[in-house]
Amino acid sequence: MERIRTSELAQHAGEQVLLRGWLHHRRILAHVTFLVLRDAWGTCQVVSAADTSGADDITPESVIEVSGLAVAEPRAPGGVEVREAQLRVLSPAPAGLPFDLFRPTIGAALPTVLDHAAVALRHPRRRAAFQLMGASVAAYRTALRAEGFTEVFTPKIVATATESGATCFRLDYFGHVAYLAQSPQLYKQMLVGVFERVFEVAPVFRAEPHDTPRHLNEYVSLDAEIGFITDHRDVMALLERVVGAMARAAGEHAAAPQAGARLPIAVSTAFPTLHFSEALELLASRFGSDVLAEPDLAPAHERWLGEWALRTHGSDFLFVVGFPMQKRPFYTHPDPARPTYSNSFDLLFRGLELATGGQRLHRYEDYESAMRERQIEAGPFAGYLEAFRYGMPPHGGFAIGLERWVQQLIGASNLRETTLFPRDLNRLLP
Amino acid sequence: MERIRTSELAQHAGEQVLLRGWLHHRRILAHVTFLVLRDAWGTCQVVSAADTSGADDITPESVIEVSGLAVAEPRAPGGVEVREAQLRVLSPAPAGLPFDLFRPTIGAALPTVLDHAAVALRHPRRRAAFQLMGASVAAYRTALRAEGFTEVFTPKIVATATESGATCFRLDYFGHVAYLAQSPQLYKQMLVGVFERVFEVAPVFRAEPHDTPRHLNEYVSLDAEIGFITDHRDVMALLERVVGAMARAAGEHAAAPQAGARLPIAVSTAFPTLHFSEALELLASRFGSDVLAEPDLAPAHERWLGEWALRTHGSDFLFVVGFPMQKRPFYTHPDPARPTYSNSFDLLFRGLELATGGQRLHRYEDYESAMRERQIEAGPFAGYLEAFRYGMPPHGGFAIGLERWVQQLIGASNLRETTLFPRDLNRLLP
Repeated sequence: MERIRTSELAQHAGEQVLLRGWLHHRRILAHVTFLVLRDAWGTCQVVSAADTSGADDITPESVIEVSGLAVAEPRAPGGVEVREAQLRVLSPAPAGLPFDLFRPTIGAALPTVLDHAAVALRHPRRRAAFQLMGASVAAYRTALRAEGFTEVFTPKIVATATESGATCFRLDYFGHVAYLAQSPQLYKQMLVGVFERVFEVAPVFRAEPHDTPRHLNEYVSLDAEIGFITDHRDVMALLERVVGAMARAAGEHAAAPQAGARLPIAVSTAFPTLHFSEALELLASRFGSDVLAEPDLAPAHERWLGEWALRTHGSDFLFVVGFPMQKRPFYTHPDPARPTYSNSFDLLFRGLELATGGQRLHRYEDYESAMRERQIEAGPFAGYLEAFRYGMPPHGGFAIGLERWVQQLIGASNLRETTLFPRDLNRLLP
Repeated sequence: MERIRTSELAQHAGEQVLLRGWLHHRRILAHVTFLVLRDAWGTCQVVSAADTSGADDITPESVIEVSGLAVAEPRAPGGVEVREAQLRVLSPAPAGLPFDLFRPTIGAALPTVLDHAAVALRHPRRRAAFQLMGASVAAYRTALRAEGFTEVFTPKIVATATESGATCFRLDYFGHVAYLAQSPQLYKQMLVGVFERVFEVAPVFRAEPHDTPRHLNEYVSLDAEIGFITDHRDVMALLERVVGAMARAAGEHAAAPQAGARLPIAVSTAFPTLHFSEALELLASRFGSDVLAEPDLAPAHERWLGEWALRTHGSDFLFVVGFPMQKRPFYTHPDPARPTYSNSFDLLFRGLELATGGQRLHRYEDYESAMRERQIEAGPFAGYLEAFRYGMPPHGGFAIGLERWVQQLIGASNLRETTLFPRDLNRLLP
């Protein structure tokens, strides 16, 4: 008999069925034992007469095979249960899990949950978050491919560490100093000269010793870069379309309710936009005029602006554009009308920076002067600068933090909850 | 006017059109100048009357905008050309490219080509290889998602380096020794306990000081792992389906002829399979009986077996199964009938190892004894072993080398030709 998935059980009412999965939960009553079998697609209830099938001896998380009759039963979750069950243990588990998996949430502190990732990730609610992650990434790629983007793969071991001021991990590369790439920025720009439109989904590495719920030292960056734009507004429009596609895919996924996903409001309309200087004015009214001197937004400011966008525009999203040039990397394109401000933006999702992007410089001379002004030695960037020397169109792009996307989607309070195996100051295992 | 792509020109014959791209080539005749404009989708011919448009002064690789009349012209490549052209230079390029891009191939040695990647990758033939790469990866993911696989993202900074004997890059992680992951092997197995079927597309890192045309120190690995298998043959069947999907996607891509892709023979049928011991017998008849003592296949042996598969089975593919346990990593499942051989395999594509895979151990006790036998300290693997302690089904998986796939597809003699920015013993730039 062919194995069916728990999600297919309802279609097989009245038939003999074969299921495989894990023993998720067990309740032993006087004359009957109720088992819950969990597979990758859900759970189902299995009813076993006491003492006939060995069901009472099977421990949670044992891998089991169940054959029996699928019977419509309104009281069973999903409306169908398996009766007259024959059970076979494929892989037994010992008693004494680090925590129960059958309860609505795991009753342990986050560090314990992360220490026992191999078990904790099996919890349906935790698992569901990563199913939404996979679906979101698929939608990201599909949306970009439909617009003519080429997927690229750029090196993570790089020779230079100074592109944006972030701290990089250093390694010994056959006797040379090398670094782990903090972003594919330089490569995706070079590749605009080849493919015009490129995207990459890959890990990025930051050696900053942050210890906050919103930072990790390794995360997945959804990068895109597009040529022949007018300015950053073309990039923002692209980002709106892409985020819309991701939200729809997550919303339609069967795991969305299980993950506790709260779908974004107003994702299908143009996102409200504030200039950085306007954002500071608003913030000054709340936090006092000291903020007017700030060159960047603090996390508390982002949260407040997120609330403002929801209150004022009914949107979970807010673009802040025109960050001061002084805090942006050397490749940032200035606003031609107000050159101390840039053609760059952040996208806030429920008050957290989800994405950053903008228009880049594209003329070779502009790179020469930008690097001279910032006292960046051009030598190590020769291969990058060659792209601009030999004809580059106006272009721009963005980078979305994948784990933050899922974090905000499900309302997790810590980025570690939406990272399979997080890497932080204190965590390198499992 | 809306910009059109060169690939759309034929649909617009008789209309005014606007194109943007790079000046790919220019021929100045007495009364007329022929330009070739290149964009991400192809090239088109632009005809400009002498001295009226400034066409004669534009240098190759300048970014240009062309507006004019699309006219059917049988002698033009693609059957349509642009006449009465108005030209505008968006980004000029200086004279003196490192090599010509308009010739059928780049007339420079590979190191020069790689040094000037930003320019060399613009060559239509080089670029096309990476368009096939992108299409192949998309097909890989689509095939697996259709079979219920979840895409996962696992850390590349890891605490242990001993999983398979490969040499790892070391880095300092906030005062701790860490390594760059040589594969997602341990994580994808742990995640079979969560999602049953997982895949990952991500960079892997090998610190081996190889200096060959078939090794790189960073490459993209297409990994998959599947639970509830009978044995390695289920994994091989999955790999056949996936490789078939990749071949079809590459074959249908518009860039396939440009890349010089030669599509695999017999990709839609079951691949021929040789047991390792049979392979050695065959090799002994050609290379002498010394090979019978070998625990692995040498590159020359793989090449010969590839020719044998084509000659004998009319197939570009060959599975070699049953490699001796002694050369395989600790998680390898032995062949129950002949325990010195393993349930693992290599897939050769035109005589080159394209993928490796097999069935894994799934019982906790088997891991305990395998690690004891190989004198591997269990401590650093505690988080991994927990997955097996708490119920893991029989499972297996494979890893495909993405750059090798494209290399063999287009018949490139060096893996560096199918890597955008290769990393090897001597190359860390660009």
